[in-house]
Parts: sequence; structure tokens; C-alpha cells
Amino acid sequence: MALTGVLRPGHVQLRMLDLEEGVRHYRDVLGLQETGRDDQGRVYLKAWDERDHSSVILRQADRAGMDFMGFKVLDEATLDQLEKDVQAWGLQTERLPAGELMETGERVRFIIPSGHAIELFVHKTMVGNPLGEVDPGSWCKEQDTGIAPLRLDHALLYGPNVDQVLDLFTNVLGFHLAEYVNLPDTDIKGALWLACSNKAHDIAFVVHEEPGALHHVSFLLESWDRVLRAADIMAAHKVPVDIGPTRHGITRGGTIYAWDPSGNRFETFQGGNYSYPDWNRIEWSWDGLGAGGGLDVAHRKLHETFLGVVT
Amino acid sequence: MALTGVLRPGHVQLRMLDLEEGVRHYRDVLGLQETGRDDQGRVYLKAWDERDHSSVILRQADRAGMDFMGFKVLDEATLDQLEKDVQAWGLQTERLPAGELMETGERVRFIIPSGHAIELFVHKTMVGNPLGEVDPGSWCKEQDTGIAPLRLDHALLYGPNVDQVLDLFTNVLGFHLAEYVNLPDTDIKGALWLACSNKAHDIAFVVHEEPGALHHVSFLLESWDRVLRAADIMAAHKVPVDIGPTRHGITRGGTIYAWDPSGNRFETFQGGNYSYPDWNRIEWSWDGLGAGGGLDVAHRKLHETFLGVVT
Amino acid sequence: MALTGVLRPGHVQLRMLDLEEGVRHYRDVLGLQETGRDDQGRVYLKAWDERDHSSVILRQADRAGMDFMGFKVLDEATLDQLEKDVQAWGLQTERLPAGELMETGERVRFIIPSGHAIELFVHKTMVGNPLGEVDPGSWCKEQDTGIAPLRLDHALLYGPNVDQVLDLFTNVLGFHLAEYVNLPDTDIKGALWLACSNKAHDIAFVVHEEPGALHHVSFLLESWDRVLRAADIMAAHKVPVDIGPTRHGITRGGTIYAWDPSGNRFETFQGGNYSYPDWNRIEWSWDGLGAGGGLDVAHRKLHETFLGVVT
Amino acid sequence: MALTGVLRPGHVQLRMLDLEEGVRHYRDVLGLQETGRDDQGRVYLKAWDERDHSSVILRQADRAGMDFMGFKVLDEATLDQLEKDVQAWGLQTERLPAGELMETGERVRFIIPSGHAIELFVHKTMVGNPLGEVDPGSWCKEQDTGIAPLRLDHALLYGPNVDQVLDLFTNVLGFHLAEYVNLPDTDIKGALWLACSNKAHDIAFVVHEEPGALHHVSFLLESWDRVLRAADIMAAHKVPVDIGPTRHGITRGGTIYAWDPSGNRFETFQGGNYSYPDWNRIEWSWDGLGAGGGLDVAHRKLHETFLGVVT
Repeated sequence: MALTGVLRPGHVQLRMLDLEEGVRHYRDVLGLQETGRDDQGRVYLKAWDERDHSSVILRQADRAGMDFMGFKVLDEATLDQLEKDVQAWGLQTERLPAGELMETGERVRFIIPSGHAIELFVHKTMVGNPLGEVDPGSWCKEQDTGIAPLRLDHALLYGPNVDQVLDLFTNVLGFHLAEYVNLPDTDIKGALWLACSNKAHDIAFVVHEEPGALHHVSFLLESWDRVLRAADIMAAHKVPVDIGPTRHGITRGGTIYAWDPSGNRFETFQGGNYSYPDWNRIEWSWDGLGAGGGLDVAHRKLHETFLGVVT
Repeated sequence: MALTGVLRPGHVQLRMLDLEEGVRHYRDVLGLQETGRDDQGRVYLKAWDERDHSSVILRQADRAGMDFMGFKVLDEATLDQLEKDVQAWGLQTERLPAGELMETGERVRFIIPSGHAIELFVHKTMVGNPLGEVDPGSWCKEQDTGIAPLRLDHALLYGPNVDQVLDLFTNVLGFHLAEYVNLPDTDIKGALWLACSNKAHDIAFVVHEEPGALHHVSFLLESWDRVLRAADIMAAHKVPVDIGPTRHGITRGGTIYAWDPSGNRFETFQGGNYSYPDWNRIEWSWDGLGAGGGLDVAHRKLHETFLGVVT
Repeated sequence: MALTGVLRPGHVQLRMLDLEEGVRHYRDVLGLQETGRDDQGRVYLKAWDERDHSSVILRQADRAGMDFMGFKVLDEATLDQLEKDVQAWGLQTERLPAGELMETGERVRFIIPSGHAIELFVHKTMVGNPLGEVDPGSWCKEQDTGIAPLRLDHALLYGPNVDQVLDLFTNVLGFHLAEYVNLPDTDIKGALWLACSNKAHDIAFVVHEEPGALHHVSFLLESWDRVLRAADIMAAHKVPVDIGPTRHGITRGGTIYAWDPSGNRFETFQGGNYSYPDWNRIEWSWDGLGAGGGLDVAHRKLHETFLGVVT
Repeated sequence: MALTGVLRPGHVQLRMLDLEEGVRHYRDVLGLQETGRDDQGRVYLKAWDERDHSSVILRQADRAGMDFMGFKVLDEATLDQLEKDVQAWGLQTERLPAGELMETGERVRFIIPSGHAIELFVHKTMVGNPLGEVDPGSWCKEQDTGIAPLRLDHALLYGPNVDQVLDLFTNVLGFHLAEYVNLPDTDIKGALWLACSNKAHDIAFVVHEEPGALHHVSFLLESWDRVLRAADIMAAHKVPVDIGPTRHGITRGGTIYAWDPSGNRFETFQGGNYSYPDWNRIEWSWDGLGAGGGLDVAHRKLHETFLGVVT
């Protein structure tokens, strides 16, 4: 099968300093649909065009950040094989029972060398999008409710041992490296954009001393017009913006980085390029990341917050 | 590997009633780059953001249409395996030598039950895009030269035995069915949108008496604004338009169908949805294709030319 | 004063075969705000960004079409002067009392040679837009409710004696001719686009045997993306579309023509050019109107409905 | 006449520290057309959709900034009357002979209380746009050459005595005030957006100690997509960007502020609202200008450069 193995980002669990404030942000401002709450008090949300039950899970916590990120894999055989492969690569894995996460099957979890908990799973209840699966229309009111992204698209994670992460994701999990940044005056890959599809990226990493840190989770919009509308809606709700609207040179996406009420960065972006495993990787120098517009095509500088502020 | 097997549409060879007129269309109006001519007189072109040497090959002929469509596969092992699998499925295959097509390696060709010649290949010289692979910019003059699509995206082919084609593409070639149309008052799938990636489709078929017919080859634009610009440029060059600008309900893409000087239909489209092999297929009824906006969201009708005009 | 005299289209009164169905269309699909109903049963609506109380008035009637179109003028002195000038030009005028139309002052009405009732008025209660007039935001929910045009922009009216209308509007009412179409094989101006501002047009006329006919009233959208969204919303509500999405060569606007439930044509358009009284007029030949893309840049033909279907 | 008196910004003369470098910027990066050079060595340029001979004049100088801004008025009678009115208001006026500026008639010049030289003129040779005036197309290559704005749109000028400027522009020159900013903790209008049309503004002023300073000259683009393309082209040519892409709350336009090689700020913007003389003015508090998004909807702050950097 052409698209196989790890299919896509399935869910992220984010920590909220004030859960209901977080729900108001992700549901009423970002415009995700609330699809459930579990007995732990966690709140489940999905973007309007996603088919699976939920992609963003919020929980009350004392510290912001991301608990884990899960990827949907093709089938049980894939899950079993990847579990073995990850173990063979040297990581411990844990099986979380079906139902521990609402409407989600058994998950295989492991801590990758950057300190992040990554999960693989096969089953999540397919609830569909509001357009339906038979003679669907092309407009639903959910498209105009809040910022209304199409989907959770990817996350950018900060942590140590990025070289090992690269090995794990490309040689075990089947991702390909689409773009990378070399650390200053070296040819050490300090930032990675990795895809398990022909998207520009499904997950990205930047080397960082502290393990397990979240730089941002990203949500896909349909157009650059919708990015401006996102800015308008953020302004209407006093959402603090970090960077943008601008274009990233890396991935060529049009983007805004902003912060949720707990201080987690999120991105609303559109467009950008796509990638294939046989293509030459796009290489960015450290200067290219800053002055070359890798981060910000309009301003061509390395915003301080980009390297320093994570949760 | 997550993206493996058949990677993407690699090339189509189109027949031109007047080759130089065809070149002027695809190069000067559509805005592809001419990358070579071979000793058979064939002309090779690529879209500006494609990395491979060429995606559209034009040749002089007495009859319009498509000679063959080729897909790039991951590696030699994949090619050998798919060759065997296609043979096992019951088709004869032919190996065309490296270099028969410029800057292209050996190709495995077979005629599928709809009468189309499909090819698989591993090697095509990677020439890159004008932005480069190290600290690339985000603008090059090729983006503003002609309609300037990013890439050859897919083709829609007309022919018989679409049920067998579905079996071949999904069970042998690793594609997944993203959307389909049932024939009137039946549950027979008469039209298929198939993907080997998470694109909305990489190839599509509609059942048709005559084998081997071409409905259109499609080129991807960055935005709906660029679709309007495409209409402006078509007008400036008196390119006859079939349908659009409009949105297809199927795939949700914004689109124009138009004709090249030989009467082959081509599409300039943008956006649209994406697909995954585990998603429920989107089903269209015959009424949904017409009155339901499957073909044309704005006009919600089955344009006569859609079913009747092919090359 | 630089912008003086006749300022802008202020209101149109449209006849609905089924008033409540009409209200549902203009309010719930087009997305105008209902601002009042009077004791005659007329329903008043405004576009979200308009400041005046209402711009579209609907009434129950046996026949579709437009009762009258009113223009706001600068002040009482202007109204008195224009009243005299119109009389001097040879038309009878009538004063309608303040309050006859809700929240609207005295109106001067006259029947122009094309058979349409045109009104001038000074006062209409200024209710503002939802963004407010002190430190306004840039987003309000009304922008995303229905198609949500910014304003009533212009109307295209069909009737006889277009040459006299041209004289009246340019020499008495202070409009300038921005673009015109010559009748086939003549230099008789058979279609006029007239502006009292630097818009592409504030009113337009096409010569037609039947007096007093309405071709369409037009509503302005912010972007070509919003035109596609309009098509999506029309599809969701089964609004029949006449022409578009496409670009008019005339005025260069991106457009959709569609029909309200009573059969009145309305337009949702965006962009286009602007005009100044000192510019050379843009001249369209009859062929230019059709094959030259004057009506439809994408399809370059004279759609039959354009000339034949009015209310 | 509805649009009369002062019609529009006609030209600005900008000082370049290195003339040819300036020409390369305005012609090759911004994409204006060079239309002439005079015996003083001044270079004349126009935007592709402008009809008049030129709108931007560049000259070599030791100091950056703007020499003068000229407005086209309707006719000779208007010019004579405005000359008298300006004199009656208390300013000295000067007549510059026809031809002193290429292809431009006699100009009436006066220094307004903010220290800027403002000119009024009637004649400038109309050279038209590349689309032509008979059956024009909707695309020309000039649209895709450089950033390619439609027109010089307005300028923002910094200087003292803004209250007097307001009186002059509204009570003598016929402009209307569209939006204004109150100085901190006062109701003194410290910033003015003034229009002689139904544009959002044709000229703007901010109170400033130094007389005669230029904040920016602004060029209109067709869409927000074109603003992103402007950012891409600026990056390709290493044009330093000040603010944006973002939306101004004031005028609601999508914008980028950037600097030409001499340090003059220029703006590429799109959209935004429109204005009428009878509308309530939009009032901005000092907080509204900054935290309220008046300057920058996305970032909601008063960028230091906005108040401090002028030429």
C-alpha cells in the first residue's frame, strides 16, 4: 500500500492551567467541536473536517505543555510490528488499554530521546464531518464558527537528542525528513521537519536542553484569507500573538503563532509545500533560519521567542 | 515506511495535432518549463515546483489524447515487486529501457482494463525547483510566468471495466479509494477517485465505452485567487474554457476545465480536501454528481461535455 | 467638497412573490440584518457594514421586480437643487413624506425615461455597523452569518431611452460614465455603467424594450475567496445560479449572478476597478461584451439569460 | 457633480540618496513602469493600472523624504477657485508652469501648516493602462512584474499643526475626515485620515514636532494573496520590512510597511473599508491605536518605529 504504516497525527493531550478557560479558547475561539468529557475530567475536541472522534484533549494541570502526541497507524499488524521495532531500537513501550482515552483503542506509548511521549494507535471512533459521506455539501456552519481549522496538522517539539529522534522516526517509524536546519557553523541537524505522508510535515523537532517541551501544535486553514480572519478573531478575543501573519520559508506555509490561555503556543497556518521521501531534503543554515526567512519571510529574523519560549 | 510503494504521478505523454502550438500552450500559457527535446521530437516540460526532470511530454500525432501515464515508485525493489504483482493479477507487462524517455530510468508498462497504458518507474533525474534546496527563497519569477501551476497533480481517465481497475489499483498498486460515484439507480461504482498519498486523488476513472480515453490532466495552483488569474490568462490567450471557475463537490477543489489547442482537456485547480486509507469513502449518487454539485457546486448540473467529450 | 451631490445608492425596494420566503433568502442566506417591519408589512434589511438603517426593502407583491431605487444625497440644499434640476430637465417629481419609508426622511421621486422610479433623499437613521465607531474591532459575527456582503453596491436596470438616461445622470445628477457598450454595428451606447463616486459603478442601464425592468441588484464581498464561499452557501440553500463564479471584463469584478426565490437576479461580487470623472470611458463593442469577455471573462460568450431574463 | 473638486492623489516626488538604486526599487521590485526622465534627471513612474503619465517622481538628493504631493482636480475653474480659497484661508500659493513636471500642466503649490508642500493641478497626460480602453482584457504582464500595485493610493505625513491641517482639508479642499486618533488622555485629534473620494483615505496626517516629514506613501494591491506575494518579493530582494503582513484596524486594510533603499517607508496594502462624508467619523483612542489594534490588528501594540521613524 502506498500510504501505510503511520498515517497521521491523531491526537495531542494539552495541559491547561484553567480547564474551562482552555475549553473556551479551543472551542469558542479556535472553533473546535467539543465531542466529549471523560471521568477524569478531560475534554475532547475535534476540528470540523476531521473524521475521527477527537484530536485535541485538554486536562487541568499545574503546568502547561503537552502530555503526549498520538499517531494513527494503518492496522493492528502495523501496530504490533512498530511496537517490536521501537523496542528493538531500544525504547521501552507501554500498552494503554482501549477506552483509557475516549473512543480510542489500545495505544502503544514510548518516551522518545527528546523526552516526549509518543503513542501509536489503530482505532478511534470515526464520527465524520458535518458535510457527511454521501453527496456531501461544501459548506457547513462549523466552517464559520471560530477560526475553524480543517484539522490538527502537526506539532513542533523541543528537546535533546534530536539526532536519535531523526534515526527513530526515519528508520523505525517510516517518516521521511523533509527539511532541516543545521546548527550554527556545523552540519549537525538541530531542527527537523518530518512527514509520514506527502504533507510538508507531520511532526517537527528542535534541539533544546530541557526534555519534553512543546513549541506549538498546529492547525490547518484553507487559505491565506482565513489566516487574516484568524488574526481578526484572535484580536476580537484578545488572544496574544507571537509571530505573523507571515510566511515561513520552511514549508512555505502562511502562518500565525499565538498563545492559548495557559501559555501553550498554537499555530494557524495554510498552504505551504508538500514532500516526498525520494526528494532531496531542503537544508537550512542557521542564518537561513533567521536572516534567510526560514522562520519569517517578511521579517527575516530569528524572533527571540522562537528559541526561548516553550511549555 | 509510511509513504511507500507508488509515490506520485510522474509523467503523462500527450498527443498534439500541432506540436509547436501545443508547446506554446503548455509552456507559454500554462507556464510549464521546457526541459528538453528528444530525437523523436518529443518535448519535455515540468511545472516550476516539481523536482523531477519532466512531467508532461508532448508529441506530434494525428489524434489527440494521452499515450501513457507514469507513476514514480519508491525504489527498484518496489518496482520489481509491483511488476510481479501486476503480472500475477493477470496483465502483461513490458520493460522500456532507461533513456527511452529522457532522463528517465527503466519503466514497467502495462495496459489496464480501461485501455490505458500505465507505467511505473524509479528514476527520473532530479533537477530541483528554481528556489533551490539550501536556504530557498519563497518567490521565483517562474511562479509568475503563465498560469504557473505547482505540479502535475492527477489525471481523469475514461474507459471500460472500471470495477477491475478499482481492484487493480487498490489491491495491487496500493492506492485507496477516496470518493466514488454510483451509476444511476445502482450501487455500481462508475467513477473512482484514487490516491496513493493523502492527496484528494492521484488518478481518477469514469466508466466509458471507448477504451483508453483521456478526460483531463490536472495541474495544481496555490489558491483560488490563482484560479481567477488562470481564467484571466486563458482569456488573454483565447483558451476555450469548458467548466468553471467553480468548486467540484467531489474533492472540494476550486477548478477550471479548459482545452488545449489539440482538444485535450486540462484542469487548473486548487485546494480541495485530502484523504486517508482508513477513512470512509465518500459516496456520490448520480444525482449527487449533477444536482448535488459533485461536478459543479455553483451550477449543480451535469454539464454535457463532462460525460461526452474526451480525447 | 470633493464627494458631494449624490453620494451613494441608499435603498432598493424589491417585490417578493412570497414575502417570508424572500426574507429567509435575504436575511438567512444572503445574510442581511433585518432592521424593521412597517405597518404596510414591508421588511427592512441592511448589510452588516452599512451605516444607514436599511438598504433593501422587501414587500409582498404579485409580480417580482424593483419598485424604486433611492440615492442618498449630501444635504437639503443638494436635494432642493437636484429636484429643481430634474424638473428643469423635464421630469415630474414627487415628494414622499418623511417616515413613509422607515427611518427615512423626505424623498424626491421621479420616473426616468427608462421607466424606473428613482428617489433622492437626505436622511436615513444612522445605526452604524456592529464594529462600532470608537476603537472598532475588525471582526464581528455578522461577517460570518450567511453570504454577508459589506453593502448594497449598485443595480443594473433594463429599459428604453438609455441615451436620455445617460444625459440625465451625467448632466443633471452628476454621475460620470465609467464604461459603456455600443449596440451591434453602431456607436449607440446601449449599456451604461455610471458612478457618483470612484466606485466602478453605482448604477447601470441596458437598453430594453420593456420599461422599468430589473436585471439585478448587487452586493459587495471582500474577496474572491468570499465569492467561492457565496457559491458554497448558495449550494447549501439550493439558490439557483445564473452566471459565475467568473470575472466580468466590464468593471473587472469577480462575480456570481443568482436568483432570489421570486426570480429577481442578485449579484455577489468583489473587487473590480474604480473610476474617475476625468478618465477616458472604457468602450465595449458588442463582440467585446460577449466574445471579448465583457460579461464573462472565463467563458467569453453572451449568456442568453443576460439579455433575456429580467423582472 | 457627485465626484468633483479634488479628485485624487496625482503624484509624489521622493528624494533618493542613490537615484539608480531608487529606480531599481520602485521599478524592478515594486514594479512601477518607468515613463520618462527629465532634464533635471528626475525619473517618472506609474503603477500599471493608473491612467495618468506618472505618479511617483524620484530625484537624487542628500536627504530622503518627500518634496511634494500633488492632487489632480477636476478642471481649471476648480483650480482657480481652490487657489483663491487657499489664499483666503491664509496661505501663500505659487504657480509652477506647465511642463516643469513632465507631461503635467500648471500646478498651484502651497505649504500647509504641517510643513508639507501640497500641489493642485488639472492636466497630466493620460497614457492609459496596458489593458486599453476598448474591449480591454483582464490580464497584462505588467500585473505580474514586481509587486505590481494598481495605483499610488495615499500618503501619511507627519508634522505640526494637525488641527489647522484638518480645517484646511475639510473646509477648504473639500475632504472629509474618515477616521482620527485622539492624543493620550485628550480629545485632541492627533492623527487624521482624510478622503476626497469614497476611499478609506486619500491623505493622512500624524502630529509630529518636525515639519514636512514623510511617514509613508502607499500603493494598492488587489488582494491579501498579493500582500503575501509582496512579502515574498521583498524577501527575494532583501527589502527591509517594518510592520506586517497584518491588518490595520484603522481603515481595515491588509498591509506591509517596508523601506525603500533611501529609508523612505512605503506601504503595500489591500482592501480596507471606504468612507462617505455623511458617515460618523471613526474615533480611535490612543490605547485603541496600540492595544486596540488600530495600527496592527494581529499584534495590538504601538510599534516604536510607527511614531519615531520618518524621512
